[in-house]
Amino acid sequence: MDKYVRDLVERALKEDIGPGDVTSEAIIPPESTSRAVILAKQFLVLAGIEVSREVFHTLDPTIQFTPLAKDGDGIPAGTELVRLSGNTRALLTGERVALNLLQHLSGIATLTAKYVEMVKGLKAGVLDTRKTTPGLRQLEKYAVRMGGGRNHRFGLFDGVLIKDNHIKAAGSITRAVERAREKANHLLKIEVETKTLDEVSESLSVKADIIMLDNMHVDMMRESVTLIAGRALVEASGNVTLGTIRAIAETGVDFISSGSLTHSAPAADISMKIK
Amino acid sequence: MDKYVRDLVERALKEDIGPGDVTSEAIIPPESTSRAVILAKQFLVLAGIEVSREVFHTLDPTIQFTPLAKDGDGIPAGTELVRLSGNTRALLTGERVALNLLQHLSGIATLTAKYVEMVKGLKAGVLDTRKTTPGLRQLEKYAVRMGGGRNHRFGLFDGVLIKDNHIKAAGSITRAVERAREKANHLLKIEVETKTLDEVSESLSVKADIIMLDNMHVDMMRESVTLIAGRALVEASGNVTLGTIRAIAETGVDFISSGSLTHSAPAADISMKIK
Amino acid sequence: MDKYVRDLVERALKEDIGPGDVTSEAIIPPESTSRAVILAKQFLVLAGIEVSREVFHTLDPTIQFTPLAKDGDGIPAGTELVRLSGNTRALLTGERVALNLLQHLSGIATLTAKYVEMVKGLKAGVLDTRKTTPGLRQLEKYAVRMGGGRNHRFGLFDGVLIKDNHIKAAGSITRAVERAREKANHLLKIEVETKTLDEVSESLSVKADIIMLDNMHVDMMRESVTLIAGRALVEASGNVTLGTIRAIAETGVDFISSGSLTHSAPAADISMKIK
Amino acid sequence: MDKYVRDLVERALKEDIGPGDVTSEAIIPPESTSRAVILAKQFLVLAGIEVSREVFHTLDPTIQFTPLAKDGDGIPAGTELVRLSGNTRALLTGERVALNLLQHLSGIATLTAKYVEMVKGLKAGVLDTRKTTPGLRQLEKYAVRMGGGRNHRFGLFDGVLIKDNHIKAAGSITRAVERAREKANHLLKIEVETKTLDEVSESLSVKADIIMLDNMHVDMMRESVTLIAGRALVEASGNVTLGTIRAIAETGVDFISSGSLTHSAPAADISMKIK
Amino acid sequence: MDKYVRDLVERALKEDIGPGDVTSEAIIPPESTSRAVILAKQFLVLAGIEVSREVFHTLDPTIQFTPLAKDGDGIPAGTELVRLSGNTRALLTGERVALNLLQHLSGIATLTAKYVEMVKGLKAGVLDTRKTTPGLRQLEKYAVRMGGGRNHRFGLFDGVLIKDNHIKAAGSITRAVERAREKANHLLKIEVETKTLDEVSESLSVKADIIMLDNMHVDMMRESVTLIAGRALVEASGNVTLGTIRAIAETGVDFISSGSLTHSAPAADISMKIK
Amino acid sequence: MDKYVRDLVERALKEDIGPGDVTSEAIIPPESTSRAVILAKQFLVLAGIEVSREVFHTLDPTIQFTPLAKDGDGIPAGTELVRLSGNTRALLTGERVALNLLQHLSGIATLTAKYVEMVKGLKAGVLDTRKTTPGLRQLEKYAVRMGGGRNHRFGLFDGVLIKDNHIKAAGSITRAVERAREKANHLLKIEVETKTLDEVSESLSVKADIIMLDNMHVDMMRESVTLIAGRALVEASGNVTLGTIRAIAETGVDFISSGSLTHSAPAADISMKIK
Repeated sequence: MDKYVRDLVERALKEDIGPGDVTSEAIIPPESTSRAVILAKQFLVLAGIEVSREVFHTLDPTIQFTPLAKDGDGIPAGTELVRLSGNTRALLTGERVALNLLQHLSGIATLTAKYVEMVKGLKAGVLDTRKTTPGLRQLEKYAVRMGGGRNHRFGLFDGVLIKDNHIKAAGSITRAVERAREKANHLLKIEVETKTLDEVSESLSVKADIIMLDNMHVDMMRESVTLIAGRALVEASGNVTLGTIRAIAETGVDFISSGSLTHSAPAADISMKIK
Repeated sequence: MDKYVRDLVERALKEDIGPGDVTSEAIIPPESTSRAVILAKQFLVLAGIEVSREVFHTLDPTIQFTPLAKDGDGIPAGTELVRLSGNTRALLTGERVALNLLQHLSGIATLTAKYVEMVKGLKAGVLDTRKTTPGLRQLEKYAVRMGGGRNHRFGLFDGVLIKDNHIKAAGSITRAVERAREKANHLLKIEVETKTLDEVSESLSVKADIIMLDNMHVDMMRESVTLIAGRALVEASGNVTLGTIRAIAETGVDFISSGSLTHSAPAADISMKIK
Repeated sequence: MDKYVRDLVERALKEDIGPGDVTSEAIIPPESTSRAVILAKQFLVLAGIEVSREVFHTLDPTIQFTPLAKDGDGIPAGTELVRLSGNTRALLTGERVALNLLQHLSGIATLTAKYVEMVKGLKAGVLDTRKTTPGLRQLEKYAVRMGGGRNHRFGLFDGVLIKDNHIKAAGSITRAVERAREKANHLLKIEVETKTLDEVSESLSVKADIIMLDNMHVDMMRESVTLIAGRALVEASGNVTLGTIRAIAETGVDFISSGSLTHSAPAADISMKIK
Repeated sequence: MDKYVRDLVERALKEDIGPGDVTSEAIIPPESTSRAVILAKQFLVLAGIEVSREVFHTLDPTIQFTPLAKDGDGIPAGTELVRLSGNTRALLTGERVALNLLQHLSGIATLTAKYVEMVKGLKAGVLDTRKTTPGLRQLEKYAVRMGGGRNHRFGLFDGVLIKDNHIKAAGSITRAVERAREKANHLLKIEVETKTLDEVSESLSVKADIIMLDNMHVDMMRESVTLIAGRALVEASGNVTLGTIRAIAETGVDFISSGSLTHSAPAADISMKIK
Repeated sequence: MDKYVRDLVERALKEDIGPGDVTSEAIIPPESTSRAVILAKQFLVLAGIEVSREVFHTLDPTIQFTPLAKDGDGIPAGTELVRLSGNTRALLTGERVALNLLQHLSGIATLTAKYVEMVKGLKAGVLDTRKTTPGLRQLEKYAVRMGGGRNHRFGLFDGVLIKDNHIKAAGSITRAVERAREKANHLLKIEVETKTLDEVSESLSVKADIIMLDNMHVDMMRESVTLIAGRALVEASGNVTLGTIRAIAETGVDFISSGSLTHSAPAADISMKIK
Repeated sequence: MDKYVRDLVERALKEDIGPGDVTSEAIIPPESTSRAVILAKQFLVLAGIEVSREVFHTLDPTIQFTPLAKDGDGIPAGTELVRLSGNTRALLTGERVALNLLQHLSGIATLTAKYVEMVKGLKAGVLDTRKTTPGLRQLEKYAVRMGGGRNHRFGLFDGVLIKDNHIKAAGSITRAVERAREKANHLLKIEVETKTLDEVSESLSVKADIIMLDNMHVDMMRESVTLIAGRALVEASGNVTLGTIRAIAETGVDFISSGSLTHSAPAADISMKIK
């Protein structure tokens, strides 16, 4: 567990516990111990098991936490995910924060897995975006990987992505790419967002490393892929749903990115029971 | 804007920008200025407008940020929400974090408003839960209020809620309530989670302030409300959907709580355009 | 030891040690070990023993720290409280911070115990207030409990307490209570501060959960208790001293609160000796 | 206001407000404004006026805060200390934290002034110690200065003070002083704690810069001062009360130090009234 | 000034000032004002002027700080860099931290400019490395840019650089590059460190984006450049000094990187004088 | 390892790793283990061995870290300094930060040792200054000690040093020293910076504890030492190089201080090799 997760968990616990868990402290004797299980109540792809361990161990390092599955596993409804035993107060105090994290991350992994399943057999990788929950990006991108997806850049610092607004400000795709090549770290590729075949052509002519086809009709995507002909990587973006993703992948693009993987995945249904 | 929001925004910006926005810094001249708008691309109930202002002002306090709507407003698709003008780099660098917050919070407010609309004319208040995103609870609960909902407790510290696990550990509802009354801060009410009419009766007999009807069939809820007869507040919980909420409210409960308001609201569709 | 205490101890050590304990580092060889005792030099009720352990263990986790008494114990003058052994530098460097905490918290517990002793046999609970030392509230309220007192609310967030200023702003007790009932979290009780019998009556008529009798003469307190007749909890406040508290308790109030428990308790006399 | 005070004030406000001032937010309209005064309810020496300003300005920078006295002033009972006007919620939310700081610091300044008054006309300076409240040392030492006292070292880093435990560990005063002179920063003086005339003599013979007379009878103090004869500064410590301090000062010592200035000063009685 | 710089400056000031500037506070009246200049005492390339402004403004926002040159300028010995006026204490208290930053950053810019001058007319860009001072990387890389250099990656996160140790662990260059291409963010280029022509060949055959020639003799570098023939970018590294850099550049490499720009640049001689 | 070092190491790792070491994570299997050595590639005086241990243990506490030398040792080129074994990813991810710290601190210790060697047999101690790298002062001053030097004050808080600017503001040396004696903590000595014999005389007449001879010619230094005649400690400062330091020491001064020990020491050449 690295410092990023420890800080996140401490912040989440502080937010929930504040000056104290008044219910458990009033009702549960401090020395009471219990056994508990964490249960999947729906089919899900698991993500966050070690994060949930960190929640309980931050409260009490002596809690026994035995995972029965691991992140990335597909889990049928009704399956036990973790067995716990230890101090009852710590189990009850940590329950909600642990579940909140586990449900959120497994929700993302589960949705990602559905998208990935839809493009099975085709080369297109399913990518996340920067449309993540503030403060949780690293964990959400981890959950996408657990669901079989791949990560787009982690932030504004590890990849050059030239969007329409940058192009407007620079005057043209050509000038935007030239400036980026001159100034940005030479280890970063340059991706250009395009909406038309002309823009695809111009991007190719200035040797963009990656071309994003933004909100294009599937037919135009197919033409673009033909035009690009392997001279750049191709990423499709916009209007990506479970209903459209297969057709998009069949155009031959290398990657398909969707913000909904992270910003609109419903929480997976997971609960904890004291035995 | 209080310190909680400032810290959250700084954390979110740091997560996204890291050592620098390589694209904007390479392509956009530092002195360039632009005008931009933030647009609702679907019907939504707005939440987070001041938080998004804080994002841009953290990057550059001289940016002009003019809201055209306020939190809590119902907004038709296609409406301009904010007009901005100022340093182009700051506008582009802040865009994603501002939208991530605005889309997430407006998503919650919009979903909450749908639930509230469903119980119109009945006394039941729509409540959130502690099933929130780690680190964002205060803002998410604010978004629930903007959607017309009410807040349940903010954490483990501002209300005694005795759940089945507490009851097991204490031996009975009676003993759990007695201990809570003896030890907890006298300004906190005591709520008991019940699953049967017997549990409702026992809770009444020890003068619980609030009785939660957990995952009960609507008929049993109605019986419970009759049994309680105003001697305690009544909260319904479990299986609350847009399809079930009206029937639940019609049983006469005081409150209906649902985790999905915060943990499964899809992001509202909002974008920013440089003019 | 939770994060709150660890942070407090780290801040206190940093404040005292800064870039180094120049005396010990110059004079004591780094490998030197010693044995030491912490001694009560007056009668006291102990509070803070685990906090003082945290001080030494933050400096050196290998120090042997053996408590000979526990928080809440009444301790005669001259009693050994802790035996320590380990690195001499760490013992000397930690001494002052450990004692500062132990003396401050035991001072509060000792004073609280005197108040509690005075109301023995009567139902009135002795309460602290929010008049605590900035940054130390949780520990000070813990010390009050160790002295046999009970805690009032922990902050502005876990109880509604309507004071004269709120009443003025709202226009009347009735309107203030109504607004609070409508808006505040339904798990929080509503307490009203009153100075006259009329205010007590008005508070009763709007079903305040708790009525504070503020700075009333003992006779008026008695009348108020009679008037309230069990329909609300009653808290007495103002002019509470060791000389007045028994008479106040005899009026039949449920609680008596006093800021002096925390803001004016003299430090208990405790010292550490290297053997 | 420097960062130290800003951090302290933010920590104190967070501790008190947590997720929100439920009373004011429910009852006071957000746009309501009020006028208020802060009043001394006893004679006191003021300390902390700028710190209390920082409390209100952290909550709302537009609050008008007009001090009618300044730190270090002697203030008769009943005097107005500050006039405030601005947002009512901010005034009520900040009241307790502002008063807690002002009462604590003025309590220290007031007690210090009494000690200083007792030694009027004699050369002895009244010194504080490191027996301060964790996290508040700088402010408490500031309050001592406001009361007319002087500060001893701020921590373990800005002065060498060789106590009995250091002497034991080193083998003798001579060796302890020699080691300190060899290793410690050459800008720091060396003070030795002594309990007997022999120890005073040994300290003189190794040219200690300052000699502390610890818990000596007044007669032995007088002899020590004669023996030292100006060859070192002299500090008296131990059993310093309002009853003993004049006799101690009359022995001719340069400084008298007392922990009670900071660890046992009762809070000064100060309140705030909304007009 | 962004949060990164503000945090760094606050940390540096806290480190230097601790509980107070005892000299200035004792000697300089609080209301005293002065004028001062900051002077270059050697030829230098300036870097850090805005950082030094932040130092003074953190202490006192009313200080007048008028730069007479800007970062990146070549400055003859004896030139005034900044004129200041304002509170004397703040000027004296901030002097050392401001100069420490300015001297360090200008030292790096000045050394970088010498390297850049040596390769004038050739295409090779001068690059820094990750051999920077802990906590100062962003500012040091900024100083390199001010000296005319370019930045290599900012950390382990914004570029794939496969070194000998990675190759050993993977088994071969081919497998290492394949794994990196499969797993790393598609916006990151892949650079391989090579020591022989065979390694260069293997890197080319797996289409490495960049090939680093590590500690090669200039002749072998030239052969490598010929072999690569524009199919990858080429970076030379190792034994880069003012004496060797021109010969290295003449081999036709695209970039030359050197740790000494940041880890061994002597401080530039700059001082401040009160007028 | 104290909190200061832990915080510094965490900050340095975060700066370098950000959201992840993309190369190692892509190429090195998570369970891979390796053995490695850290090697001195030049003669050096070692400083920072425990700091480098902290770097690896922060990443993975199970790494075996076996130092073969200790701080303060003189190390011939080619010597193994540390043997490591454990998780390959952690070794590679920590390498650069560990070496950056070790090279920087050993560079300072090595340069200090050269200065100390030059004054061998003479009484003059070699002192550092406050001209240190922001955020690293404590470690840099530690490195000076490891090289055989002594530390000047750690900041503005632990010694009074009256410079020309203070003298100007006070009006004269006499008035500056008098004010400092009256106000500053009595445990701090008073040092005065002088440039002429007259200033030396005036400093003596007001009993300055230490006299700094600033940028004086060696002849004037010698005269000053004669004039002072043991009545104050003497520190020489300015134009201190390996070429001049012996002559300065021969004048009989007690201390010689030089900023170059910390601000201009080139990094020592140290590398790590996976076996």
